[in-house]
Amino acid sequence: MSIYGNLDFLDLGYRPKETDVVLVYTVTQSGMTVARAAELLAGESSIGTWTKIQTMNPVIAKTLRPHVFFVDEKTGEVRIAYPELLFEPGNMPGILSSIAGNIYGMKGVDKLRLEDIRFTKRIMDGFKGPQFGVEGVRKITGIYDRPLLGTIVKPKVGLTAEQHARVAYEAWAGGLDVVKDDENLVSMAFNTFDERMKLTLAARDRAEQETGQKKIYLANITAETDEMKRRALVVKRLGGEFVMIDILTAGWAAVQTMRNFCGEQKLAIHAHRAMHGALTRDPRHGISMVALAKIARLVGVDQLHIGTADFGKMEGSADLALTLEREIESGAMPADELHHVLRQEWRGVKPTLVVASGGLSPLATPGLLKVMGPDTVMQYGGGCHGHPDGTRAGAAAIRQSLDAALAGIPLAEYAQTHPELARALGKWGTTTLKEKPLKAATKKAKTAKKSTKTTKAARKTAPKRTEKKKR
Amino acid sequence: MSIYGNLDFLDLGYRPKETDVVLVYTVTQSGMTVARAAELLAGESSIGTWTKIQTMNPVIAKTLRPHVFFVDEKTGEVRIAYPELLFEPGNMPGILSSIAGNIYGMKGVDKLRLEDIRFTKRIMDGFKGPQFGVEGVRKITGIYDRPLLGTIVKPKVGLTAEQHARVAYEAWAGGLDVVKDDENLVSMAFNTFDERMKLTLAARDRAEQETGQKKIYLANITAETDEMKRRALVVKRLGGEFVMIDILTAGWAAVQTMRNFCGEQKLAIHAHRAMHGALTRDPRHGISMVALAKIARLVGVDQLHIGTADFGKMEGSADLALTLEREIESGAMPADELHHVLRQEWRGVKPTLVVASGGLSPLATPGLLKVMGPDTVMQYGGGCHGHPDGTRAGAAAIRQSLDAALAGIPLAEYAQTHPELARALGKWGTTTLKEKPLKAATKKAKTAKKSTKTTKAARKTAPKRTEKKKR
Repeated sequence: MSIYGNLDFLDLGYRPKETDVVLVYTVTQSGMTVARAAELLAGESSIGTWTKIQTMNPVIAKTLRPHVFFVDEKTGEVRIAYPELLFEPGNMPGILSSIAGNIYGMKGVDKLRLEDIRFTKRIMDGFKGPQFGVEGVRKITGIYDRPLLGTIVKPKVGLTAEQHARVAYEAWAGGLDVVKDDENLVSMAFNTFDERMKLTLAARDRAEQETGQKKIYLANITAETDEMKRRALVVKRLGGEFVMIDILTAGWAAVQTMRNFCGEQKLAIHAHRAMHGALTRDPRHGISMVALAKIARLVGVDQLHIGTADFGKMEGSADLALTLEREIESGAMPADELHHVLRQEWRGVKPTLVVASGGLSPLATPGLLKVMGPDTVMQYGGGCHGHPDGTRAGAAAIRQSLDAALAGIPLAEYAQTHPELARALGKWGTTTLKEKPLKAATKKAKTAKKSTKTTKAARKTAPKRTEKKKR
Repeated sequence: MSIYGNLDFLDLGYRPKETDVVLVYTVTQSGMTVARAAELLAGESSIGTWTKIQTMNPVIAKTLRPHVFFVDEKTGEVRIAYPELLFEPGNMPGILSSIAGNIYGMKGVDKLRLEDIRFTKRIMDGFKGPQFGVEGVRKITGIYDRPLLGTIVKPKVGLTAEQHARVAYEAWAGGLDVVKDDENLVSMAFNTFDERMKLTLAARDRAEQETGQKKIYLANITAETDEMKRRALVVKRLGGEFVMIDILTAGWAAVQTMRNFCGEQKLAIHAHRAMHGALTRDPRHGISMVALAKIARLVGVDQLHIGTADFGKMEGSADLALTLEREIESGAMPADELHHVLRQEWRGVKPTLVVASGGLSPLATPGLLKVMGPDTVMQYGGGCHGHPDGTRAGAAAIRQSLDAALAGIPLAEYAQTHPELARALGKWGTTTLKEKPLKAATKKAKTAKKSTKTTKAARKTAPKRTEKKKR
């Protein structure tokens, strides 16, 4: 039955080819079946229009036809295979204009969520992927066996460049590896980018000399693209290794540009995901964090914020954090039915190191380590500078919390011989971050691991399962 | 009462200063009052963190403090004034990382919608605004007294460059002013950007020579930023006046960059809003189209898609289209309570011409003209190439539909002496686009006009009203 310009895109017997880009959506349709809504969106993303047109020809209708090959009328999940020729490799904005463009505004759907994308080799070859990846970041830091510990300078905005550099120095001197600008700290009248770089990277040098340890500064260069390049060069000239970009407010065209530029300059990219909640929050609408994270890895950021596995101030469960970590840190992602995630072979694209950040205190460290493992950057903002004795003591307490966790010693016990940690527990042990959420999150993570295992086993048979559902 | 790092941001007696950026949000909070949620997000967007920090100082707490000055616990509407010093003028990604960043992911809110932003002079001075604007586009086209009529080449993707150019020629020759690439047509294996430009702009030259009329090609250059610059130069070298960018999938950093670059090259920018529905669709979440449109005008696009006032295939009401048109085409936007829109003085920033596109046929023209007036680009895709006699006849029918509407003659009457229009009515007059939605939309528009009038009258007293509500 043809519904969209007399074209028929429903093909439940179809099995996606290696040259098909496969999309998973959750559809909340309006006044029609899910299958019909799926055809509408498949058409709008490819060769369709709302009426039969004279300019269509049989070659196009055959070679570029999308196939809606899976439909679940109950849950609204649909899967669509698009011939890769519909897309321009290496053009993420162009790809998104197809698969995440007009379709959100169609009258036929009330809500629509892009859950996952399986890219083909040809499409993937168009992107650079991370320049450094997990191994490269490990090499820069010289730390191979534990999570990297960092802080975000606080208050988010307000310190002068001089104050900023001093706080950064205290954090590094106190034992942290990483200091990060906040996502909304760019170039302010009272704290210009260039002045902040000069002073903060000098503070970094001093901290390195005094501690004998490698220290990292994640310099927020978020701006218009050419200005980002200029700012990246400032960082490079002062001996920095990392730039930070708010990838969603800057946008994918600029992220691609900066991946190219940072490749030339040998700078690593730390990706902040500010604004993701506008797209990811509603489980029935927008774009999933899994899809955004895949895109970020493919385009080529070296580190990416993925949430705090429910230990912090931001929403986001432990099992989602695990799925995200598996997606961007593994060589091949297994299918994960729970999160509508398809198997993805990463074909040598380097992994992106995950970052946990947002409302963390030293109390969260053992749980985070348990859930997310050593290949993680753990970042504490208020949880560092909110220490009753200030930033340096806060940094020490964070470091102690990790030492305790790595040694398997309960924080309360470790605190008996570590006064900074004791003071931190004294402040936060009885307020917002109790043991309870920690336990709950760890439990959730276990459940998630189990469910992913099941999924892993079902991986090879997944297409069969899909077919069964359809018949 | 302090709730966010011991800072108190609720200040219902506060009246925003000229140097405050004012934000309107709709909050759907979780486990707390709207006022409390508003304080949380005001803090996260500025100087707050989740715990009291040692690095805060009285200067920051005083000079950069946000003020939550209006709270409606029933509707969830809140208004927050931020000192403009919190933002970097000319850095839209940086501004959005503050006002539309982490706040969407906070545990305290279930949903959050950025409704409107009132920019200050200092912030506005950082952006270029449109290079050409409505007047400039009129000058390029030589058409001053009627809407511009255009088509989108269809199928969206699939034609070769040669076929594309031929279809474009037919549309221009048939009487249309504008031909546009579809939003997902970038540089394809079977239709590369450079080849398409060469052939289509040659077809444009031929159509101009034959008709003696100015013809416009909106060339979709959407890609990574440096590649967009290269593509813009290709357009320029071949004598094009316009480039088209999918502004949301490309992202604001790149749009700013291209505004700068197109300024140097004297190219106008046509902005497609593909993906906006992912942000705008849920009336309680994301970012409103009004806010996106304001940002687009401020950054400086010359034309912007704003929907079809309910005449097409995409959702979006006539009254919203009117509000959007008033916002981006006027010199000063009056407050509009219905759409949570604040008064905005545009301070000489040129207006952006609105574009109606998506599922339009000649049948929609009279209604569209009534609702949106002459300062509009009307674009027909399937409604042109779907004409039973093909593209050229479709273009003629569209032109006839406008001639009829401008003369105040009903389409059915005009069709008696205009066979192309008659054939179009024969196809679409009895299918998807009936008179009914047309009438409904026109009625809606009238209501909207009335409601805006009321608002206009209330404009000067708006702050007082706000105060009354609070007391």
